[in-house]
Amino acid sequence: MQRFLGRSSQSLLLRCGHRYLATTPVEEVIFPTKSDFPSRHIGPRKTDVVAMLDTLGFKSLAELTEKAVPQSIQLKRELDLDKPLNEHELIRRIRDISLKNQLWRSYIGMGYHNCHVPHTIIRNMFENPGWTTQYTPYQPEIAQGRLESLLNYQTLVTDLTGLDVANASLLDEGTAAAEAMCLATRHNKRKKLYLSNRVHPQTLSVVKTRTEALELEIVVGPIEQADLPSRELAGILLQYPDTYGDVKDFEDIAALAKKNGTLVVVATDLLSLTLLRPPAEFGADIAVGTSQRLGVPLGYGGPHAGFFACKQSLVRLMPGRMIGVTRDMDGNDAYRLALQTREQHIRRDKATSNICTAQALLANMSAMYAIYHGPEGLKAMANRIHHFTLTLQTGVLGAGHEVINKNFFDTLHIRLGGGQSLEDLKERAEHKRINLRYLEDDTVGVALDETVSVADVDDLLWVFKAEASVEHILARKDVLKNSIENSKFLRTSPYLQHPIFQSYHSESRMVRYMKKLENKDISLVHSMIPLGSCTMKLNSTTEMMPCSFRHFTDIHPFAPVEQAQGFHQMFKELEHDLCEITGYDRISFQPNSGAQGEYAGLRAIRSYHEHRNEGHRNICLIPISAHGTNPASAQMAGMKVEPIRILSNGSIDMAHLRAKAEEHAHELSCLMITYPSTMGVFEETVADICTLIHKHGGQVYLDGANMNAQVGLCRPGDYGSDVSHLNLHKTFCIPHGGGGPGMGPIGVKAHLAPYLPGHPVVSPLSSEEHSFGVVSAAPFGSSAILPISWSYIKLMGSRGLKRATQVAILNANYMSKRLEQHYKTLYKAPNSQLVAHEFILDIRDLKKSANIEAVDVAKRLMDYGFHAPTMSWPVAGTLMIEPTESEDKEELDRFCDAMISIREEIAEIEAGRMDKAVNPLKMSPHTQAQVISDKWDRPYTREQAAFPAIFVKPDAKIWPTVGRIDDAYGDKHLVCTCPPILPDL
Amino acid sequence: MQRFLGRSSQSLLLRCGHRYLATTPVEEVIFPTKSDFPSRHIGPRKTDVVAMLDTLGFKSLAELTEKAVPQSIQLKRELDLDKPLNEHELIRRIRDISLKNQLWRSYIGMGYHNCHVPHTIIRNMFENPGWTTQYTPYQPEIAQGRLESLLNYQTLVTDLTGLDVANASLLDEGTAAAEAMCLATRHNKRKKLYLSNRVHPQTLSVVKTRTEALELEIVVGPIEQADLPSRELAGILLQYPDTYGDVKDFEDIAALAKKNGTLVVVATDLLSLTLLRPPAEFGADIAVGTSQRLGVPLGYGGPHAGFFACKQSLVRLMPGRMIGVTRDMDGNDAYRLALQTREQHIRRDKATSNICTAQALLANMSAMYAIYHGPEGLKAMANRIHHFTLTLQTGVLGAGHEVINKNFFDTLHIRLGGGQSLEDLKERAEHKRINLRYLEDDTVGVALDETVSVADVDDLLWVFKAEASVEHILARKDVLKNSIENSKFLRTSPYLQHPIFQSYHSESRMVRYMKKLENKDISLVHSMIPLGSCTMKLNSTTEMMPCSFRHFTDIHPFAPVEQAQGFHQMFKELEHDLCEITGYDRISFQPNSGAQGEYAGLRAIRSYHEHRNEGHRNICLIPISAHGTNPASAQMAGMKVEPIRILSNGSIDMAHLRAKAEEHAHELSCLMITYPSTMGVFEETVADICTLIHKHGGQVYLDGANMNAQVGLCRPGDYGSDVSHLNLHKTFCIPHGGGGPGMGPIGVKAHLAPYLPGHPVVSPLSSEEHSFGVVSAAPFGSSAILPISWSYIKLMGSRGLKRATQVAILNANYMSKRLEQHYKTLYKAPNSQLVAHEFILDIRDLKKSANIEAVDVAKRLMDYGFHAPTMSWPVAGTLMIEPTESEDKEELDRFCDAMISIREEIAEIEAGRMDKAVNPLKMSPHTQAQVISDKWDRPYTREQAAFPAIFVKPDAKIWPTVGRIDDAYGDKHLVCTCPPILPDL
Ligand SMILES: Cc1ncc(COP(=O)(O)O)c(C=O)c1O
Ligand SMILES: Cc1ncc(COP(=O)(O)O)c(C=O)c1O
Ligand SMILES: O=C([O-])O
Repeated sequence: MQRFLGRSSQSLLLRCGHRYLATTPVEEVIFPTKSDFPSRHIGPRKTDVVAMLDTLGFKSLAELTEKAVPQSIQLKRELDLDKPLNEHELIRRIRDISLKNQLWRSYIGMGYHNCHVPHTIIRNMFENPGWTTQYTPYQPEIAQGRLESLLNYQTLVTDLTGLDVANASLLDEGTAAAEAMCLATRHNKRKKLYLSNRVHPQTLSVVKTRTEALELEIVVGPIEQADLPSRELAGILLQYPDTYGDVKDFEDIAALAKKNGTLVVVATDLLSLTLLRPPAEFGADIAVGTSQRLGVPLGYGGPHAGFFACKQSLVRLMPGRMIGVTRDMDGNDAYRLALQTREQHIRRDKATSNICTAQALLANMSAMYAIYHGPEGLKAMANRIHHFTLTLQTGVLGAGHEVINKNFFDTLHIRLGGGQSLEDLKERAEHKRINLRYLEDDTVGVALDETVSVADVDDLLWVFKAEASVEHILARKDVLKNSIENSKFLRTSPYLQHPIFQSYHSESRMVRYMKKLENKDISLVHSMIPLGSCTMKLNSTTEMMPCSFRHFTDIHPFAPVEQAQGFHQMFKELEHDLCEITGYDRISFQPNSGAQGEYAGLRAIRSYHEHRNEGHRNICLIPISAHGTNPASAQMAGMKVEPIRILSNGSIDMAHLRAKAEEHAHELSCLMITYPSTMGVFEETVADICTLIHKHGGQVYLDGANMNAQVGLCRPGDYGSDVSHLNLHKTFCIPHGGGGPGMGPIGVKAHLAPYLPGHPVVSPLSSEEHSFGVVSAAPFGSSAILPISWSYIKLMGSRGLKRATQVAILNANYMSKRLEQHYKTLYKAPNSQLVAHEFILDIRDLKKSANIEAVDVAKRLMDYGFHAPTMSWPVAGTLMIEPTESEDKEELDRFCDAMISIREEIAEIEAGRMDKAVNPLKMSPHTQAQVISDKWDRPYTREQAAFPAIFVKPDAKIWPTVGRIDDAYGDKHLVCTCPPILPDL
Repeated sequence: MQRFLGRSSQSLLLRCGHRYLATTPVEEVIFPTKSDFPSRHIGPRKTDVVAMLDTLGFKSLAELTEKAVPQSIQLKRELDLDKPLNEHELIRRIRDISLKNQLWRSYIGMGYHNCHVPHTIIRNMFENPGWTTQYTPYQPEIAQGRLESLLNYQTLVTDLTGLDVANASLLDEGTAAAEAMCLATRHNKRKKLYLSNRVHPQTLSVVKTRTEALELEIVVGPIEQADLPSRELAGILLQYPDTYGDVKDFEDIAALAKKNGTLVVVATDLLSLTLLRPPAEFGADIAVGTSQRLGVPLGYGGPHAGFFACKQSLVRLMPGRMIGVTRDMDGNDAYRLALQTREQHIRRDKATSNICTAQALLANMSAMYAIYHGPEGLKAMANRIHHFTLTLQTGVLGAGHEVINKNFFDTLHIRLGGGQSLEDLKERAEHKRINLRYLEDDTVGVALDETVSVADVDDLLWVFKAEASVEHILARKDVLKNSIENSKFLRTSPYLQHPIFQSYHSESRMVRYMKKLENKDISLVHSMIPLGSCTMKLNSTTEMMPCSFRHFTDIHPFAPVEQAQGFHQMFKELEHDLCEITGYDRISFQPNSGAQGEYAGLRAIRSYHEHRNEGHRNICLIPISAHGTNPASAQMAGMKVEPIRILSNGSIDMAHLRAKAEEHAHELSCLMITYPSTMGVFEETVADICTLIHKHGGQVYLDGANMNAQVGLCRPGDYGSDVSHLNLHKTFCIPHGGGGPGMGPIGVKAHLAPYLPGHPVVSPLSSEEHSFGVVSAAPFGSSAILPISWSYIKLMGSRGLKRATQVAILNANYMSKRLEQHYKTLYKAPNSQLVAHEFILDIRDLKKSANIEAVDVAKRLMDYGFHAPTMSWPVAGTLMIEPTESEDKEELDRFCDAMISIREEIAEIEAGRMDKAVNPLKMSPHTQAQVISDKWDRPYTREQAAFPAIFVKPDAKIWPTVGRIDDAYGDKHLVCTCPPILPDL
């Protein structure tokens, strides 16, 4: 339908307040689309955009961004994407897609188990933007809620494993195991690892992939054959219960390992440890695994939290973020990120790991799940599952089959007997819509979970042609005879004795606890979070809704692909759209964070070189301004990092780059570059840089963290990049969840496509021939949150996406302009004098003039109700601001007003009218306890402290719940589990 | 399966920490049920229950409640209900039931239109316990959030209707119209009403039912025939656009009415008023209707908000609650309930109306919907619908049909022509799964709504055998020629110009606005709300989830019953369960509030008498302690209220009752009694009272508000009551939503069943022969929230329900006991010395000793983080506390500690150590502005003001957002729309 508007209707509609071009299709005029998602997603109204452009001296967004983005790389056409859907059409469409997934009962196990997520946790946490839209708790004073929850998670993990410390999640079980094995080599400087062949295949693959690149020697085999006395083994990896369900006694092996200086790493299942002797008690140094089954849906593979626990002696080698207990300036207990805070930025390619975004939200869900059930509840649940497994074993044996594993928790490993053929079994299982694990040697695995009912076990008995039903078996046999209770594996030590796990068992209490923690934290439901490089944009409800569809949540990642057609259609469409947006040819969805994407991309590059017989190419050039994950990932990929200098204007030192590229021409593997740069500028030279690298035989890895400045305006694949990760949790609207989940799929040009990640169970590739290996436990990473990004693109359409990018750039430039008389924007593009979608404010001069540092401004912003910008990165002593397109002019102005007001407070110090040590900045943030005390002896008023601007109103103030954190104290007194005080109940 | 536990398994399980009887079925022991909903719903843990019983000197709950509940009425058996489901089974079950509903497209109209609820409003408001679990905002200092939102609703209604004032919702369009007509008779003291025959049939029925009982004369007919010059008409009721879709010019009629002293009441459609001249501009005195289509799902009839707007001159006659702007003690603007606050309790049978629970949550949703779309968005939407209707008209005319109405907004009234038979039309409509309105004269109504797309209109054209499609029609015809734009009906006056409706159009802003308001209010997510008579218990997520199922939300109430089989199954099961619980024989789900239930029950009684030729029986005996709605309802039902005295021990004065029953034996219609009494005691005499009333030919109406003390212990139907309403929003877990929705179905004994409410469109009865009429616009009231109560019962089972009641009684007695040395519990049962599930604290003595009144204690409780108990009802100068079973011991203790601490503060005043006028109670509640001011000149510290107990912590304090409200000021300066100041944006 392409009819245009007649004059009379047109003037009529003008009167209705509509402004249409004569070329507008008549339908759009007569039936204006009701819901225009881009105008919901993008903050500034049309009139605001005009005013802001005016401030900057531009007539249109096009004029602005044509100047901001280098001519040479501009995309001169519209992206070729579907016509945008409105929010209700979108939900219909994605629901229809989801319904193409089939919900069979999966007893496949292998680290993924169905579970009942308590509805109150789904609704009040997983579906609640107050819990999903915060950032990683780098600003502890306004993050005590999720810090407490993550500490609960750490306590859960340490209690159940019996180890001393745990971190606040890793990406999955596979990478946790890989991190542990690498830790072992760092710990004892040995180069050889032994992996039990009874570990989950995907874990083995991830560990092998990760260790191979580091030129470590890996042996996989029966654990009894590990040559421990050689004293060459850095570590051994065991699984308990193992992938076949066996519970074995590792006490002797662990003792032998210990004697020989080898670390013992145990992959384990937290729920089983409510019944089984925990790894620490038989000698494990490290325990890893996934906490998925503790209250997180299967989601076709993720997101789930990987856990990592170790002995105290290894804590300083532990990867990932750990919450610690410290105190604030008033001496009150307070939580914060301990030790590892941004160590990548300090240690670069010497960092322990490249992990950055983790799985905070999922760790929080598991922590709340444990709190909801408490130790008795979890134990009863584990017993229920175990007893069902015993019952099933009895029935299966009765039917003439062999149960290969004698000691088990929830999994049976069965060799068919009694005349039943595998075909018959499969047919019966299919008839009941049941998935089992079919092993290569024609044995079968069956893993039960908390959702299993008597009827389910009866069905399984039928599938195995057992004549008995649960009822009959219970009547005839003492099924508990072989239970863990009666074995030497029985756990006798207590766990989850802290009051936190004992106090919130009614729903009222549980809801109030979640709400109390939620309300301690600043999230996007309160105000803008202008974190540079993090792109804290709107995460809309419509985008989030599909994540709760049960046809997305309730599928096992290793279910037959025919049952996951909805997911695969969605993957395909999202791959198409992301390729169109980036200019790449293929996407791998396996990496489940940006840093994982970096790693996967570098490994693909390495493979590419190897397959061209240039395997020696191992130099990775990285500008010193790059995000710390870049060098960390390069190191993990087995590359040697060569830092490239930066000019005083923030751009890459081309001369240095050229020299280095030439110097290493023969060993050059690649360049890692962020675009627009981490300094917030579109460098004119980016295309030239790519050409230069290619000329010297290298590949270009473009860090996609800043795609929010590019979508619709330019495409990395067009101007010379070979591979990028896309932080879907930045540009593509996955919420940050307080530090994860995220997704870091990589886009590659066709020549790299054969080298993308594969998978040992479900292959994401047409052929795995050239794949370098496996980076995540799940074949498609955190599949269950991909509908968010899919939805975002479908809702915005090509014009909406482009406009979003333009407004992101407008917002940053508007703020930089408004602040220019008060703070210096450190870098702008030399030609345009514009910033990209973020900008850096230089605070360093204030140190001398007023003894004020970036941290003081950051903390003072909390008193104004704001989360600080990114602090001291990429340049120490600065603040990097990224407003995103979702914030409107009023919010930007409010933030600028706060910054200007703070500058005036600093001026008071400079002028000597305010004390240099005791002033509103140094003492910030101000707590209720401080300003409501009758003892107030500060040289400024309580009102100045707490209500420093007219927009900070007593009826809606967001308070920090602790005073300024004492980091030094925390570093000295490391406490990383729930402190042994009574909680506030 | 009924096998019991062998010795060995038993001892084994004892070791697991389980305690089982040897008679426990083996399955329950070996596979302990994972999720035990009663233990989630009921607050106190088992050990707490033991401790609390101990405090009271009882050994078991059974012992306690056998003493508390009079022997004579105790139920000696278990309720016969389904085996309880766990939360996940429940969701599966109710989903399966919901799927029996069929989702056809409904173009039936008649006041119900499909709409797109913005997802962000669904998730952040409708599915958010922070918005659903507050009470009616009687305590304004901790309710400014929903007060602001309801004021926005009032502004929406006044702006669109053009009238001066509006209330904060009524129950539905039908009752709003009835209230308006009754107002007219009160206003001008005339006794005759004229109703246009072009008003929706259900509205006519409700108005007729309500007015008949008051012995008013009602004429229904063409409005032109209303005999206005007679000056006998109190009011006329018009509809605009009318039920057939016609938009007529009522200017002359209104002028004539005005001249003759007759009030003009216009039922109207708010969305149409964005295009049409509003009622006030053509002379309406009152406008009524439903705001359902503004962002509230169809839900098979409700809950939706009815609206009511009128001229300023009528404001003091307006029914229902109205929000007004006043100021607090510091002179700051503040919102509160204006004028009508609890007028029923003061004016009893002279009250303007019996409305109590209204539709606050739904009004809030509509307000947010209007804010989300803004005036331009609403107008664009209305134009879209109107243009589609014009297009459809063109097509239908082209097919040879007649469109009877010439001026319309969204509805066509069609007489078939062009050779199409009605059968053919119906067949085609069914083929497309489309519902139309089939009128009795074989004409057809089609009403379009905002969800309609081009494809939908194309389908409608096909149904009407029109050859053209939308595309063809647009190409050939100027469809806009006959639009409202080109008519005299065009609205020219502006609306929704207040910044509130202009500022929240991006989703980020919208979410933050909803969150800001939410966080101003105390709800069950913060702390217990011990409101006596209100039963603020847990509203669990699982119970709430089905309310979002689209197979419940997306059905038109007048859709053919075959399409609503899921609803009808649920009604049937819920009826069964409620009958079993109450001892009644039938349930009517039509009344959508407790007061509506009272009215319906009294009307049934009246009908019953009439059909026995005792129509003269019109005396209704009501104890003076009864809730104000009782006398108000009796008056509305055409009864004469005779108050019955109360003894000094709180119980009914039996002598007085006996005397009155005898005195009026010949005219006795009924007794209304609340049980346990509103004084919080189980009167021993209740069965005798029922016998007495029956003896004198009367019926017993038992107010079911206190069923939470009876479920599983005794049944009104057993001990003599004939009819009760059940506030499902109290005992049966529908959340209070800040003042509604609720449901007040009535249970009746078999002899009253023929007299239950009927309905003119969809009959809820097998035969309407004896029905007294219609009380609600929808046949089954607020059907869409019935799954909450259904779920509660299915989750709890008979034992869970009984235990809940027992713990409710335990909790009340425990608190009364803990407080006994500090406050006097006014009434206890004389024999048992126990209270029921609530109790009254007498504060009156403190007035003399310390100048402290109940209100001071109530406000001071806010400083402790609590919502006040029910204040000064049923006894002035007292506080009535109802903890419910969902609160645990710790929360009860915390509340008691607060009360005790307040008593100590009072003692300081009594002892002369604290000022009588300026003290922590009189100045309470304390705001941040007050305690953070540098100017503090009170005789107590800031800490005492704000942190009066150790459990009130600065990191989790709940603040009142305004200081104590100045009610007198508000009464003098009535402002009931958004104040003309710039909002805090
Ligand atoms: C520039 C840049 N690169 C890489 C990353 C790492 O991404 P992720 O946190 O998803 O691992 C970030 C994260 O903030 C980043 O800003
Ligand atoms: C004893 C009593 N009766 C009747 C009612 C009226 O019920 P509703 O508010 O649902 O109309 C109430 C409400 O609180 C009540 O407490
Ligand atoms: O709302 C009440 O009037 O109890």
